[in-house]
Order: sequence, then C-alpha cells, then structure tokens
Amino acid sequence: MKSNHESIFFNAQHSPIGAFASFTLGYPGANGGFGLELGKPADQNIYIGCSSRDGGYYELLPFYAGSDNERQRYVQSGGEAEAESTILRAFPLDAITREYKAATDEWRAGDLSFRILTQIQAVPDPEQAAAEDLKAALVPAVWAELTLDNTSGDKTRTLFFGYQGNDPYSNMRRLDDTMTTGYTGVGQGLRTAIVTENKETYSSLGFDMESILKPRSKAHHTFGLGSCGALLTEVPAGEKVTVRYAVCFYQAGIVTSGLQGSYYYSKLFDSIESVACYALEQFDTVDAASGRLEEEMNAVGLSEDQKFLIRHSVHSYYGSTELLDVQGKPVWIVNEGEYRMINTLDLTVDQLFFEMKMNPWTVRNVLDLFAERYSYTDEVQEYGSSGKHEGGISFTHDMGVANVFSRPQYSAYEISEIEDCFSYMTQEQLTNWLLCALIYAEKTQDRAWQDSKMPLIKNCFTSMLNRDHHQAEQRDGLMDLESSRTNGGAEITTYDSLDVSLGQSRRNIYIASKCWAVYVMLAHRFEEEGEAELAGLAAEQASRCASTVASGVEKDGTIPAILDGESVSRIIPAIEGLVYPHAAGLLDVYGKESPYGTYLKVLKKHLENILVPGVCLFADGGWQLSSTSINSWSSKIYLNQYVAREVLGVIQPEQQTAADHAHVSWLKDPQNAYWAWSDQTHEGIVKGSRYYPRGVTSILWLDERNKK
Amino acid sequence: MKSNHESIFFNAQHSPIGAFASFTLGYPGANGGFGLELGKPADQNIYIGCSSRDGGYYELLPFYAGSDNERQRYVQSGGEAEAESTILRAFPLDAITREYKAATDEWRAGDLSFRILTQIQAVPDPEQAAAEDLKAALVPAVWAELTLDNTSGDKTRTLFFGYQGNDPYSNMRRLDDTMTTGYTGVGQGLRTAIVTENKETYSSLGFDMESILKPRSKAHHTFGLGSCGALLTEVPAGEKVTVRYAVCFYQAGIVTSGLQGSYYYSKLFDSIESVACYALEQFDTVDAASGRLEEEMNAVGLSEDQKFLIRHSVHSYYGSTELLDVQGKPVWIVNEGEYRMINTLDLTVDQLFFEMKMNPWTVRNVLDLFAERYSYTDEVQEYGSSGKHEGGISFTHDMGVANVFSRPQYSAYEISEIEDCFSYMTQEQLTNWLLCALIYAEKTQDRAWQDSKMPLIKNCFTSMLNRDHHQAEQRDGLMDLESSRTNGGAEITTYDSLDVSLGQSRRNIYIASKCWAVYVMLAHRFEEEGEAELAGLAAEQASRCASTVASGVEKDGTIPAILDGESVSRIIPAIEGLVYPHAAGLLDVYGKESPYGTYLKVLKKHLENILVPGVCLFADGGWQLSSTSINSWSSKIYLNQYVAREVLGVIQPEQQTAADHAHVSWLKDPQNAYWAWSDQTHEGIVKGSRYYPRGVTSILWLDERNKK
Repeated sequence: MKSNHESIFFNAQHSPIGAFASFTLGYPGANGGFGLELGKPADQNIYIGCSSRDGGYYELLPFYAGSDNERQRYVQSGGEAEAESTILRAFPLDAITREYKAATDEWRAGDLSFRILTQIQAVPDPEQAAAEDLKAALVPAVWAELTLDNTSGDKTRTLFFGYQGNDPYSNMRRLDDTMTTGYTGVGQGLRTAIVTENKETYSSLGFDMESILKPRSKAHHTFGLGSCGALLTEVPAGEKVTVRYAVCFYQAGIVTSGLQGSYYYSKLFDSIESVACYALEQFDTVDAASGRLEEEMNAVGLSEDQKFLIRHSVHSYYGSTELLDVQGKPVWIVNEGEYRMINTLDLTVDQLFFEMKMNPWTVRNVLDLFAERYSYTDEVQEYGSSGKHEGGISFTHDMGVANVFSRPQYSAYEISEIEDCFSYMTQEQLTNWLLCALIYAEKTQDRAWQDSKMPLIKNCFTSMLNRDHHQAEQRDGLMDLESSRTNGGAEITTYDSLDVSLGQSRRNIYIASKCWAVYVMLAHRFEEEGEAELAGLAAEQASRCASTVASGVEKDGTIPAILDGESVSRIIPAIEGLVYPHAAGLLDVYGKESPYGTYLKVLKKHLENILVPGVCLFADGGWQLSSTSINSWSSKIYLNQYVAREVLGVIQPEQQTAADHAHVSWLKDPQNAYWAWSDQTHEGIVKGSRYYPRGVTSILWLDERNKK
Repeated sequence: MKSNHESIFFNAQHSPIGAFASFTLGYPGANGGFGLELGKPADQNIYIGCSSRDGGYYELLPFYAGSDNERQRYVQSGGEAEAESTILRAFPLDAITREYKAATDEWRAGDLSFRILTQIQAVPDPEQAAAEDLKAALVPAVWAELTLDNTSGDKTRTLFFGYQGNDPYSNMRRLDDTMTTGYTGVGQGLRTAIVTENKETYSSLGFDMESILKPRSKAHHTFGLGSCGALLTEVPAGEKVTVRYAVCFYQAGIVTSGLQGSYYYSKLFDSIESVACYALEQFDTVDAASGRLEEEMNAVGLSEDQKFLIRHSVHSYYGSTELLDVQGKPVWIVNEGEYRMINTLDLTVDQLFFEMKMNPWTVRNVLDLFAERYSYTDEVQEYGSSGKHEGGISFTHDMGVANVFSRPQYSAYEISEIEDCFSYMTQEQLTNWLLCALIYAEKTQDRAWQDSKMPLIKNCFTSMLNRDHHQAEQRDGLMDLESSRTNGGAEITTYDSLDVSLGQSRRNIYIASKCWAVYVMLAHRFEEEGEAELAGLAAEQASRCASTVASGVEKDGTIPAILDGESVSRIIPAIEGLVYPHAAGLLDVYGKESPYGTYLKVLKKHLENILVPGVCLFADGGWQLSSTSINSWSSKIYLNQYVAREVLGVIQPEQQTAADHAHVSWLKDPQNAYWAWSDQTHEGIVKGSRYYPRGVTSILWLDERNKK
C-alpha cells in the first residue's frame, strides 16, 4: 500500500472564479461532482470512461458509487460495499496515474486520459474593466478534455463523460434542445451542464449509466426522465480522439438576502447555454495560460511538496469565491469553505497576500463593505468587571452565511456572554481590517482610497489604544480589555476551537504580534501623512508591545502564549504578525537593527526553542501551532513557515522538508482527502474548516526566491 | 391499536395555488415540511409546541426526528429509533386529535392547537383578470394559527413554530432583518419562510431546537449560523393566545428550461417578504372562505369517507400546480406528483372535471400548448407488420419533467421500440386531447376558441379514423393500428404499469370507451357546426365502436379487456369513457334509448358481473380495476364509481360503502400515509404515483346530489 503522501486519490476543487462553484474530483466513489453554492462536494456519480478494447464492458475512472469498493476496504469504513455493475468496471486504483498541477489535473488509465483545466487569473475591477475582460475572467465554467487512444484497437469504442445530478428541484436534460446546431450537452435544470462542440459526440439521458451505454435502442438516448446524462463519442479503430468539454455552472437572478445580490457573471451571460458557447471559444486561451503558476513556482525553486500545497490551496480557494452585483456595485466574497460564512475577516487577512497578487481591488472592495455595513462601536471592560470604558470602532467576524447577508453591524457568528467558540473577535478583527487596509494602501498607492479612509484609520487607532488600557500610562501594547459586546464574556481569536493558548485574545502574544504589526504600519502611514504626533504615538505603542512580549521570555528562551503569569502554552503564531510589516517593506527600516530588534531576536529564539518534537512539532514532523493543543491549522502553518524563514531566518532545511512532507500527507490521508483542502487538523486528522479557501497563505512562498 | 381507517397520522399537502409548493404535515417524524418544486415531502424537522405547564420541558406535535419512536415501532421499519431529546417531548399519539377538512387542518393536544388554512379558489385568467384578483388567488403562501390555552396555567409558557431547513444552497435567516418593523419571521434563503405580525412574537435561530428554547442567553436568539429557526411567543399565565402565521414560498427568475418560464406570482410579488405581508393581510378573507367546499360536500350528502377522499385529493392536487409566465403568456402546469412530469395529458383528462369547476381557462391553456408545441403527425402500422399507412395528428404524453420542458413534439416519457412502460400513448393522448377540448367547448361556449380549433379537431377526427383502420370499410370503432413512433413496438395506455388488460391500447375496451366518447361528442359538435357529413361519420364510428364492444360480451355477461379473442381479463374502466358524454349532457340524447342503448346496457351488466369478490373487488371491498392485476388506481376508481352510479345506475350502497372505506384505509395505511394522496396501489400498498394530483376525479361526486 502506498503511503498517504504518495496517494493520488484526493478530491480537488476545479472552480470558476467568483461563481461559488466547483467541479470536484479525485476521491473514489460518488464523492465529487458539480457543486454550486455548497460547502462540500456534490456527492454525484461521475462517469468518465470508454468501452473496453474487446467491447465487452466499460472501463471508468473510479468516481461513481460502486467504483470505490477497493477504497472502502482500504479505509475500513465498515459499511457494505455497493454491488459493482456488471458492465461498468472501474480501473484498478493502481492502474491509474494523475498529474495534479495548479490549473490542470490529468488522469490516465488504460487507453484513456482525462484532463481538467481551470483559470488562475486576475479578476479585473468591474468598475473599470471592459466587459470582454470580465467575461474572460468570470465565465462560470471549467474545461475538460477526454482522450481515447484507440490506435491499437480493432473495434470502434465509445468514449463518455457524464453524471447523475442531485439538484433536488430540477431534472437532467439534453442541451441539444436549447442550443444552436453544433453543440451537444447534458445538464441539470438551469444550473449545471457539460457541453461540447465535437461533431461526433451525442447526448443521452437514462435512469442509470448502464441504460445510456447499452440502450435497447439508440432512439432511447432522447428519453427525458433519466437522472443520468452523458456525452458519448464513438472512436473508430486505429484512431486517437480527444473531445473537449465546457463544464458549466449558472444561477440567474437574486441569490442573496439581506443585501440583494446576483452573480456578476449573470450580467455577462444570459444562460448556461451562453456560458458554454463562450467557454468553448476560450479553450485554447485558457490552455495556453494554464502553466503560469507552475512556471512561477519552478522559477522560485519550490520543492514538490511546497508546490503541491500551493496548488491544492489555490484549487480550494477558488471554489469559495463569489462575485456579486448588488444594485450595480460589485461585491467580492470569499465564502468560508464548509461553513460558507461570507467574507470572514480573519480569513480575509490571511488570503490578503493572494488577493494582493491577483486582484488588489477585491481587498478594497471587502474593506469598504466592512467599513460601511459591518463595523460597530463598542465600549470596553476589564474581564470579570462590569465597569465600562470608552471603546471604539471594530468590525464584525463575517458578513453572513450561505448567501444570507447578516444585518448591519452584526456577523452571523458572534454571540455574547461566552468565552469560547462563537464569542466576539473585536480586537482581532480590528487588527485584521487595519492590516488589510494598511497593506492595500502601502502596495497600491491608491491615494483616493487612502484619503477617504484616513479618518476611519485614525478611529481604528483610537480603538486599538482603548483596548490596551483606558489610562494611557498603563498601556503596554497588549490587548487587555474586552468588548462590551461580549457582555461579560471574553473575546476569542480566529483560532476559535483551539485551547486558550490561541483561543483567548486578551494578553495573547499571537494577538500581540498583530497589534505590533498594526502599530508599526500605522507609525509609518501616519509619518507619510505628516501626522507626526499620531506617528509617534503609534511607534510608542509598537515599542511597548514589543517590549512587553520580549520581557515575557522565560529562562528557557520561550515566551508563554498568554502573558498572564499562568500560561504554560507555547505557540508558533507568536511570530505571525511579523508578516505584515515585512510584506509592506517596513522591516528594513523597523527591523533587526531597529527599536524592535530585541523583539525579533526573542521571537527567533522562541521559535527555535519550540520547534522541537513534543513541543511544537508532531511526531510526523508537522507543525503544532500550540504546545498544549493537537489542533493545528495548515493555513497558519504555511504563513508562519514563511515568517520563520523569510523574516526571522529560521531555516532548518531538514525540518522544513519533513514538515512539508507531513502537511502533504495530512491532506492526502484517506480520512481527509474527500474534503480537498482543509485547515483544522488534529494530529493529521481533519476536524474542521474543510473544503476551505484559506490555504492560499502558501502563495507567500513565491517570495522566497533563491533562499535555498 | 386503531385501524388504518381511523388513523389521523397521514401527511397532507397544504399548498398555495400554482406555486409547486407544499407545507406537508401529518406523518410523524421528520417527514413533512416546506417543499418547493419537490416530488415528495421535504423531510424537515417541524417544531410546533409549547412549554409544559410546569415549565420543565416542551410538548410538541410529533413532526420532528426522534418524535416518531412510537411510529417506528409501529411500522417496524427495523432502523434504530432516534434518541429522544430530554427537553423536547412529543405528545403521545393517542393524546392528539385532528380535524382534517378540505381547506383546514387542525391539530389539538394538551393546551395546544395548530390550524393550517389553505385556499380552494378559482384562478382567474391572467389575460383577463385584475392584478388584485390574481394576487389573492396566487399568493404563494398558506396560513397557520397556533393557540395556547394557558388560562388554567400559573406560569408564563412559550409557544413556538419553527423548522430546520434543508435547502442545500442557502442558510436559515431571521426575516426581522429584511422586513419593516412589526413583522417577525424565520426562513431559509429566499425560498421559504414563516412570518407573523404578532407583536409579542420573537424570532430565533440555533443549531437545534433545544438551543433556541434554552439559549445560554436571550441575546443568542440572533445567532446567525443555525440550521433551525423558530418564532416564539410568551403566553402569560391565565391567558389564551393565538398567533397567526403566513407560511410562505418564493422562487424568483427563470425556473424552467426549454420554455423559459418564471412563476406567475413573481410578477405580482417581488420577494418572499412581500408575499408574507400580503398573506397576513388576507388571513380573515381566506379563513372566511375556507368552509366552502365542505358546505358543498355536505349539501350533496356525501359520506365521511367520500368527503375524506375529496379533501385529500384536493390537498395533493394543489401541491402539483404551477402557473408560469413564459414571455408574457401564462402557462398552466399540473406536475405529475412524485414524477414531476409537466402536464401529463392522461392526467389532464382526469383532472378536467376539477379544472372545469374551478378555472376552465386552464384547460384551454393546456390544450393550446399541446396543440402548438406538443402535437405531432405520425403514420400508423399494424402490430407486427412494417407496412405504413397514413396516420394523423396526436399529442405527446407530457411536456417535460421537473421544470425541464421537453423539445417540441416530444414528451419526456415516450420512447420507441417497446411495448410496455414508456412506450407511446398516441391513441390515448389523441382521445384525451379531444375529450378535454370537446368538454371545454361544450361547457364554456368559448366561440372564438372553438372556431380557431375546429381545423385541428377535424384533423384529430381523421387521425382517429386512421388508427381504427386505413380502409374505411374495415373500421369497427376500435383502435387497431400502432403509431409509427413506436417503430415496431406497441402503444400503451395511461395504465402503463398495469398488465396487458389495461396496459395495451390496441383493441382495448377501456380505450374503446374513450374512442366512443370522442365519436359521440364529435358527432354532436359537428352537428352544431353544421358539418352534417362529418357528424354522420362520427356517429357511425360511435355506433361501430359501441356495437363492437357490445358484441364482445361473453356468455357470463362480461366483456374481455382486449377484443382479440384471447384476453381473459375483465376491467372496470370499460365504462370509463361514458363520463364524457355524460358530463357534456349528451347522454340524454345519445343515452339509454339511443343507438348506444345496447352498449350501455351491456356495460352495466358487465360491471355488475365483475364487481364481485375475486374478480374486480379486493378482499377489503376496494375496487380492483383489472381482474388479472392487483395494481389498482384510486383516481380511476373514483371516476368509475361515478360512472357506475351516475351513468349506469349501478348503486349497490353497501358495496360502495365498503369500497370507500377500503380506499380511505389504503391512503391512511402507515406504509402509504407519508405520501399524502397516492394513486397506484397493490392490494392496498402504494407502489407508484405517490404525492399525486390526479385524485380530484373525486370532485365528480359533487354532482351526485340526492342520489342516496
């Protein structure tokens, strides 16, 4: 048996950009398919195959119910294996190869190959861009090509690609009926379809794939009641034939409540049929661009494991993206994977680097909606005390869930009077908004936006200060006060299901690192703006924060997670915040030889001391974010790996190699691999944050050119 | 244990008109709920209840998972009963009463009562009607009121109505956020919602009903992530409080493919919120009208069993109705229950009597679309021979399935080269279209429509003749020739899953009865139009048909189902076609003393002879349509009961009483009762055609005034 690390049978999301859609494939059984607005694979039967050389049966990739008997024995799920069809035979798993790249995914078995193409493509700003450019980026389709090499065969063989839909509201159909001559397609209702221009291809519906492949009469291909649909192509003996398909998604009309939004693409395409025509036109263009990210990764010299982690992260990221039109204005959304929360701000800040690379306007777009609709002003209070002090502005955790926008000033997630999961993240989201805003400002030099947001940024600064302490002289740079919105509870962090070492916000050195980053960047920004007083105040806070954390170091050269005199936890994300000043190019000025030099040195030492087995390394070499919890988060690991190497110079090549190997193995573990890319993992087993967009923190590694 | 006949735990569909929607309730467990565009109950948890008098727990109607443990033991499904919640307790089934009426459904248990209201209301012709009248008829909502009598209680008690949504694409939400002050609601996405104007009611979301009823803090009611939503009302000690709700459905935009249609109501209401406001305004009006059908049934003197069958039929009928706007034109659809086929013509002809009573324009509307898009011209051939003869026009079995309109001239259902289920129904659908058209013409005196359709009707007549025999002198009034569309197969009838006795069209005396009816009515119509020659030809065909069937009578006074010299089956629907000339008022002219007197007498004798146990009566007294098949169809039984009594004068009161008792018992059997009204039943067990609209043939019984 192959190790998990070598396994090729993991689901990957193949997604258009901004369509909240995914053609998911790779995990044996009815475990992939055409998903729209889902937080998980569509769990459909996908039929990709050909008739055998002797014509006696059909050979398929193992992505339908009954095809995964081997897998079922493998993972010992305990359930009865489904009876395998007599004429449908899945290729044995060990007879299949896969080449999984950033924008391509190719399967080979027997005489068959199947290749999926997706776009990794900047989304132009809809308020600036030409419709043609928007169509190219936003077309809600992915591309596929299926090849049968029948050059050594002596019979005509049938090549096919089909699926069994499971939308509860509509039936399967043949798109031949609704498209102009020259197109052949099958789909379900108005939402999903596979379409080809291949002249030799014909479409068929049936109750099951067997009746499509072996109808009593060819006339039965037009039967209308089937829940299965497929496109079939006869491949003559001696020929090698490739059929190209557009795999299309569509949802018209208003799709969100709270804010009434429709998919932006529905302004550009009036139906799934028009999506199909356009997508097929674009095939060569998309194919030609499909190697770009691979080339970038190769140029940097990333390892195979690193490249896999980037590829897999990017695939899942796009599956969560959604671009809406809300009353004529674009609204960019990244849904939160399996949870489908809308623009969770503590994900936005991690996806920031990817968005800044691809389409910085989306960062501004999300920040603006947080500012306009999803900000609020609170008071603050000491934990355990009812006395209130002036607070300030902050931002909600999210903007709603599963196409339901929450009411203004409130997230779907946060509730009061608790101290764990679902509590407020007021301090963390304040830093997250500021970090995004300051990176956006620094990198784009978008003067108009900066000017318009400067009053808000100043308010945010006040809010930061007030959360440290209401008396200026008692401030030490760390968050000490809880939002009154917790109403006697306690704020948490993005690590909401981790233990207190990363879950508690108050006096947490992970939050401190983000506060420090905010202060450093604010100092710079204020300075640039000629606001010397504010710049000084921000720099002072940065110094206080750095000193407080640095002074927390214990004899063993590590810093407790919570600077409360009691914490025994040690956490890797103590270093996390360093990424922002670094990304803004400020660590050359404010770096090692700066007032923060000690802070950075202490953090480096801290990290080196905890990156050891039994503290912050799992037995397999994977990174354990907190010494007191087995709950580790891959997106954050990737980010902290980058900080470790690129900011702190903690290189340790063998350890990094082992870690990447482990992180790949986690994702490919058969217990996890159904979920494509997942974040929260307990000793290698996924426990939450599945099918998740956040892994694109790995895009940071593209900056590590020539560091080996 | 109560007999099935006495059971109150059967699902009923509570449906708006033309919205393809149903609030289904009545079968214990998570087996009802808010269904939109489904061919089955939505299978949601529905939470209707109140806190107990002592406040220690909550008492609910048994319509959520875990509430049906008693039922599970009862039906011995074999699965593990779900663990019952500690604070949610379903009322014991024997402590619950139900009053189930045509437009109301009221449950009582403990201090609680819950009443659902629906409309049985004419749909005005959208091309003629005022928008206000259309809104009143088409508002996609049903109404509910929940009462807690806490007059003898000494504590404030909580009254609640909520559900756990299972739409795969969107989240639950609070409609308070999107409605003006004064409204409180919970819903899922943009599609389903419960809304009230009650000032004391508040809304809540949660992961489960327990956390809604017992939140750690009241502030948690606004939590946004829950899949459960409920409306809660505090009822003070000593008070009796009734809360009224609108139970709303909505789907915007294009919903069908093939023909692009949107729900007609979406022209009248812009959102589910506006549906809710309007529906709540209409509560008193709807309530005031809710007894009308009951009054009609009482005035006729129908038995309790007959009334139940009509009520239950009407409830399910409305759940399948769908009124679309297709490019500015109304398109009336009745979906085919669990199969969701669009306007299955062999159902249209049975639902004709209900449509003619309620809204005759829908008959015209459906006939027109069949004429325009879903008619075709074939050739005919003798069974087993390849020689072709001139055929004629006929109509497709249906117009598509599950919001997918099929291509022009083709149904979703029919395929060639077979002789059983899914074969063509060319002859039957030709008679069905004609019967609908002729009844519509006779009853409405819609001159313009008649004139416009007369050429088509003449073509249909020719087509009828050509299916009898291509040589006029060989015609005997029965269908002998198969459509070339069967391509060597054989035509079937609407009884597609029954045995050959009712499944084969050729020389079938059921089909003959419909052919006879067509000829009789054509003769009359042609006469009225001054087309003496055609009238004579039609009358001649009617005579031939009548004579042929009458001459088929055997020594025992019965007629074989198929006049092929081999059939041993005896079928009740030999008499079915008589209903049409009777409904058109033509049997006084063409009746007992007419040229068809013998035919009618022979049929009466036939029926009396077969309506005996072991032939066409089941052991329980239910009607067995064919002596050689246990597959019986309730919609057809109701229709044939009417013909037996009203046309043929076969009264047999005790037998009829026993039959109705059996037919009620079938529907209420726990093995069937999940499916609301179903049609196909094998010895009392439902085998197909579930959740079905066709039972409204029972509406014919309203004509049987004073016949007891």
